[in-house]
Amino acid sequence: MDHAGLKSNKLRVTFLPKETTTRVPPGTTLFHAAAWIGQPVESTCGGRGTCGKCKVRVVDGLFPITPADQHHLTTEDLAAGWRLSCQAEVHAEAIAEVPRLLGTPKTAMFGVGRQVVLDPNVHKVHLRLPPPELHDQRSDLQRLKEALHAEGYAMAADLPALRSLPKVLREAEFDVTAVLCGADLVAIEAGDTSGICYGVAFDLGTTTIVGTLLDLTTGEARAVTSALNAQAVHGGDVLSRISRTMSHREGLDDLQRLAASTINGIVGELTRTAAVAADRIYEVTVAGNATMQHLLLGIDPEPISVTPFAPTVAHGLQVRADALGIAIHRSGRAYLFPHLGAYVGGDIVAGLLATALPRGDRLRLFVDVGTNGEIALGWERRTVATAAPAGPAFEGAEISCGMRATSGAIEGVRITEDHVTVQTIADAPPIGLCGSGLVDVVAQLYRRGLLDASGRLRSAEEVAGRIPESLTVRLISIDGVRAFVLATAAESGEAPVVLTQKDIRQLQFAKGSIATGIQVLLNEMRVGPGDLSEVLLAGAFGSYIHPDSARTIGLVPPVPLDRIRAVGNAAGEGAKIALLSYREREAAEAMPSRVEYLELSGREDFNDLFMKALGFPPLDTLP
Amino acid sequence: MDHAGLKSNKLRVTFLPKETTTRVPPGTTLFHAAAWIGQPVESTCGGRGTCGKCKVRVVDGLFPITPADQHHLTTEDLAAGWRLSCQAEVHAEAIAEVPRLLGTPKTAMFGVGRQVVLDPNVHKVHLRLPPPELHDQRSDLQRLKEALHAEGYAMAADLPALRSLPKVLREAEFDVTAVLCGADLVAIEAGDTSGICYGVAFDLGTTTIVGTLLDLTTGEARAVTSALNAQAVHGGDVLSRISRTMSHREGLDDLQRLAASTINGIVGELTRTAAVAADRIYEVTVAGNATMQHLLLGIDPEPISVTPFAPTVAHGLQVRADALGIAIHRSGRAYLFPHLGAYVGGDIVAGLLATALPRGDRLRLFVDVGTNGEIALGWERRTVATAAPAGPAFEGAEISCGMRATSGAIEGVRITEDHVTVQTIADAPPIGLCGSGLVDVVAQLYRRGLLDASGRLRSAEEVAGRIPESLTVRLISIDGVRAFVLATAAESGEAPVVLTQKDIRQLQFAKGSIATGIQVLLNEMRVGPGDLSEVLLAGAFGSYIHPDSARTIGLVPPVPLDRIRAVGNAAGEGAKIALLSYREREAAEAMPSRVEYLELSGREDFNDLFMKALGFPPLDTLP
Repeated sequence: MDHAGLKSNKLRVTFLPKETTTRVPPGTTLFHAAAWIGQPVESTCGGRGTCGKCKVRVVDGLFPITPADQHHLTTEDLAAGWRLSCQAEVHAEAIAEVPRLLGTPKTAMFGVGRQVVLDPNVHKVHLRLPPPELHDQRSDLQRLKEALHAEGYAMAADLPALRSLPKVLREAEFDVTAVLCGADLVAIEAGDTSGICYGVAFDLGTTTIVGTLLDLTTGEARAVTSALNAQAVHGGDVLSRISRTMSHREGLDDLQRLAASTINGIVGELTRTAAVAADRIYEVTVAGNATMQHLLLGIDPEPISVTPFAPTVAHGLQVRADALGIAIHRSGRAYLFPHLGAYVGGDIVAGLLATALPRGDRLRLFVDVGTNGEIALGWERRTVATAAPAGPAFEGAEISCGMRATSGAIEGVRITEDHVTVQTIADAPPIGLCGSGLVDVVAQLYRRGLLDASGRLRSAEEVAGRIPESLTVRLISIDGVRAFVLATAAESGEAPVVLTQKDIRQLQFAKGSIATGIQVLLNEMRVGPGDLSEVLLAGAFGSYIHPDSARTIGLVPPVPLDRIRAVGNAAGEGAKIALLSYREREAAEAMPSRVEYLELSGREDFNDLFMKALGFPPLDTLP
Repeated sequence: MDHAGLKSNKLRVTFLPKETTTRVPPGTTLFHAAAWIGQPVESTCGGRGTCGKCKVRVVDGLFPITPADQHHLTTEDLAAGWRLSCQAEVHAEAIAEVPRLLGTPKTAMFGVGRQVVLDPNVHKVHLRLPPPELHDQRSDLQRLKEALHAEGYAMAADLPALRSLPKVLREAEFDVTAVLCGADLVAIEAGDTSGICYGVAFDLGTTTIVGTLLDLTTGEARAVTSALNAQAVHGGDVLSRISRTMSHREGLDDLQRLAASTINGIVGELTRTAAVAADRIYEVTVAGNATMQHLLLGIDPEPISVTPFAPTVAHGLQVRADALGIAIHRSGRAYLFPHLGAYVGGDIVAGLLATALPRGDRLRLFVDVGTNGEIALGWERRTVATAAPAGPAFEGAEISCGMRATSGAIEGVRITEDHVTVQTIADAPPIGLCGSGLVDVVAQLYRRGLLDASGRLRSAEEVAGRIPESLTVRLISIDGVRAFVLATAAESGEAPVVLTQKDIRQLQFAKGSIATGIQVLLNEMRVGPGDLSEVLLAGAFGSYIHPDSARTIGLVPPVPLDRIRAVGNAAGEGAKIALLSYREREAAEAMPSRVEYLELSGREDFNDLFMKALGFPPLDTLP
């Protein structure tokens, strides 16, 4: 299959009566085309052709009659153009009419203002099976399969599920609840347990893992817990984790177990808090970057770390949770997001799901700033994405007074006419500078004229007369390198907190790289900052950064301030959405074929663009 | 799905130019219809729609254009009626023209004179993959999938397969051989190993397990080994094994392990004999009765033993061999045959595959005599099957001088004008009577007039004058029960070997039950013995029994002797065929929907028929 072909050759599909329109790669079903733009269509079977509820009437376009159509629809229906949308593959432009929903679907608000229809991948189906008799000697498996089929569900059972069947069925006198993850039989429970159904959505971060326990019958979040990723003992970033797998024979297994044990600690905490039994959790969703997901899967991540950066798996995967050592229901499943590239991973796909950026009707820019800047730009017609290596500056590393965003870190700076005000985390005395503070101080120095557009810190002499002495005294020189004193020894109570010219250069490289990534995407889409309806800042850093400062230093394009928006933990929100709706999950699955990934390494235009992006934008150009 | 419906409503399909015709249940593909009657059609992908080679031209019948058709065929081809036969489901009578094969397929002779086209479920595909580059960052999985797809193969990889990918691909510099079982990726091997590919076919008997190592590239049997089923320590028959699982908490696990360890012993012996590495065995096929297969799968067989005799699984299964503790390639697969009923199991399905009885153009009867008699009657138009409980008489049990068929057992008896000649196993002095000897002696007594048609042993007085004294002296009475002396103490060297009236009654019950089963099937098909083109006797007992004796006592219908044929270990042959040809395996998979299973328990006509079947047929009616 030619990926490039898939991406370019999109076909228009219009749904009546609302006339909503989308463009899909050839071979997409009408059902998935509808799900992509949030057009509701009835269905209980998950698009497997078994429930027969997803019929639409074809107004324009050729959709051959499929076996499932023949099974579920009458000759009159077929003649009138009705087709099961989940079987109808789009191979030319099409118009289809969607019947009104029979009821009002349950929805829940998640992600970035997204109203998600509750439609989880986990189904619990209560069945009163006819017990075997001499004239009905069907096997347990056949009996169950046919009963589920009659309810519109496809089912496949693996060996552990088969092993549990005879005892449970007979002890429960064939009054049971089948638990399905997709079409996989996960459990058979005695009696009617259909009201009890949980899942956990995980944001699998390099530093922190966050889990949210969701009631899959209501969409309600019952508990949230986070914990430091226990892998951190083997290094703080993905590259040190990968090098651990290369230098130690047991390294991969160790890291796999450490991630699983952190997850299990969170599951334990969640089940205690919400008083829910762990074996009522049937599925987890996991959104992490490619390295984190590979490590959790126990797959060697080494190829991710070396050029040409080809991961082993980029597909989304549904696996047995116990194969990963995750302690939920013993036959529960784990879903891991697909990746767009080695450095635009499942966390970003989840973020794109939470923001619905590639499915929207307005052009938006998504930026997740960290050691790498992950960037996506687009809308329903076309979306492109890339990763820009930013280095650790935004995390406070390799900055002379840099530190992580913990107590005493300067997270905000304001330089007024004659005064410097710093905001510290927990209002503790200032002891260093974290990423958002770094961006703030550089932006403020630039705005106050203490820094020129090339990033050069001016000397006290250069600005004398224009700037009050209360500020110029802060412009000092340390071993011949210029610096700005953010907090004196008196103010900090310990060593002074200073920003050096070298620190500023570090920030310039970091923001320059991300800005270059953004510029490459803008060029690729042939749009400019003025075309952006919104700039979404994702992740923890995105929540703390001041939008004005980000714009002032040129980290984000010059757009009006009210168009810059922090969207928080978008990866975690995406994981929740995928847990609550299999249609949304399939939208995530479609991202790799819908979103074009651009590799920055080795691009000929990169260096030129990067050089231009190192400086700061003229202040009068900011809207 | 209504099974009854599937069975009755068959549709005629004719293949040109040979005008071969078959009748298939609606929904069967043209590809499978062709495979059912041995009509060759090109294909490499196993009917998954990926290789595009199985096209046929529809001459009559409606086959909508499928997405796979659109992908592989031109507009002109489609307009001319060409369709991929593996996607074309039959929903009305149809005629299709099959192109001539491009080459002459490799075949091997197996089963009952069956020429099997070599087309194993295991495929080895040598691939030189393009290594990743910055402009080609496809994941390892995607790279492999697309390369296999280009060769016409569908592929799915489980977690263990994914975990092995990155290392093997890079160490082999992307020059690898993919090993597929069906569409499952079983292994990736460095370099071109496509010439080395083995499987083992198992006949999983209650008493004996037989394994045959097959070279899947040539179809050649490289070694055969048998071993006693180690489960025998927990009882000789299926019911005692089942009761072990009920009486001991660890019983099921123990029996599972005992079967697996017997199998592993056989694998070890086979690999030593043929000098083949165990990790070059990628698949095993296993044909056993329902209880044996359930035990090997670790699934509780208890429901099989109690009315209404509904097994947990009747489907054929492909599972990981390591999930059963079978030590072949660590990701190898095991295929287990489907069952028609609790007592017409996978071994009989394999036997029907080996004989092709339900696919033939002549009416045949298949009888496997043991503790149960398993019986099938039919041909391509319709086949019915049943199981008749025979008790242990045919295995020499509950017979006063009965014994298993080992050294010293009388296996053949001839009573001439005035003399009794016995044939013993290993020509040892006679010490007892095994099943075939029992049938022989009763038949001979009846033919010589020492036994009447009701099964009553005549007294010496009754036959005096008609029978020489050398024989009448052998008619004795023990504690008031009549008996016939087969071997005197002098002849045996130990205790005399006698056949009592009670023994004869035991045999009458056993053969009467099987004869009743046969009669029920003949009645169901509305045919008589004269319509039978052949009576096939399967299993070890079927090989040793004298056809004339079986016919004389009425165990099999009165047909000319040359129509009674021993077919040996048909289950083992079927297991080999399923290993060598996935199309034949799919024919086995289709058996449960093609062969009608009749349950004898609780049938109203059973007792009447059984009473009639207890006696012996008039001698002058035997052709």
